[in-house]
Amino acid sequence: MTNANITWVEGMQFIARGDSGHAIVIDTKAEDGGFGSGPGPMEVLLMGVLGCTSMDVISILKKKRQPVTGLKVLATGERRSEHPKCYTKIHLEYVATGEVDPEALARAIQLSEEKYCSAIATVRGVTQITSSYRVEAAG
Amino acid sequence: MTNANITWVEGMQFIARGDSGHAIVIDTKAEDGGFGSGPGPMEVLLMGVLGCTSMDVISILKKKRQPVTGLKVLATGERRSEHPKCYTKIHLEYVATGEVDPEALARAIQLSEEKYCSAIATVRGVTQITSSYRVEAAG
Repeated sequence: MTNANITWVEGMQFIARGDSGHAIVIDTKAEDGGFGSGPGPMEVLLMGVLGCTSMDVISILKKKRQPVTGLKVLATGERRSEHPKCYTKIHLEYVATGEVDPEALARAIQLSEEKYCSAIATVRGVTQITSSYRVEAAG
Repeated sequence: MTNANITWVEGMQFIARGDSGHAIVIDTKAEDGGFGSGPGPMEVLLMGVLGCTSMDVISILKKKRQPVTGLKVLATGERRSEHPKCYTKIHLEYVATGEVDPEALARAIQLSEEKYCSAIATVRGVTQITSSYRVEAAG
């Protein structure tokens, strides 16, 4: 079981808190009636997907003793223009730094997307997931 | 388009940042190799769902001139026991305070779940969504 709750503060400002005890502010921009005091809910959903797959990729690279020194993942989410504005497609661009074998990175991403990533597996019924990757020199 | 990115810090600690410019820490508990410095990714995913439907419900109640003074939503997520540990079911318990007509609350929840909530619509291909609600006296 994974649990969380949310409490309305004012306007479109909410505090969400998870089982871990950690809380975040979720809000909308001023033009949507909020204070712009935190990420919007669909950003937060995307952050969950990013966190899940990034943890997989780092764990797998470490297990393969790949000398990864950095990892950044950029998510681009396309959404329906009509309600509900669900994600129709999320592209994930993985950028690793360090002397990482590109094939090991590709394999780690594949394992995350196909086997381990609980967040990708949750959205994949509706959202098409695509990805790309590259290894960059550190610095 | 809704975009976000994530940067690995150390251990299982990451910083996720969205288009809004707001960033959150995502981490795992110490027993999973993290520092316990932020919510886990599947908690964050659930927070996105909570934020999205809560905003809908508050907006709809306000449009209907319902004197809502508080809203709390509790999410209970059941997950697969095998990889990928996606959400198989999320139960959402909506608790409103104030002189809110329970039927108006029920209708607002139904509109969110069936028409407006982009996050629920994103996970619904895989995750069964159920809900309950009650109106409590303030205080």
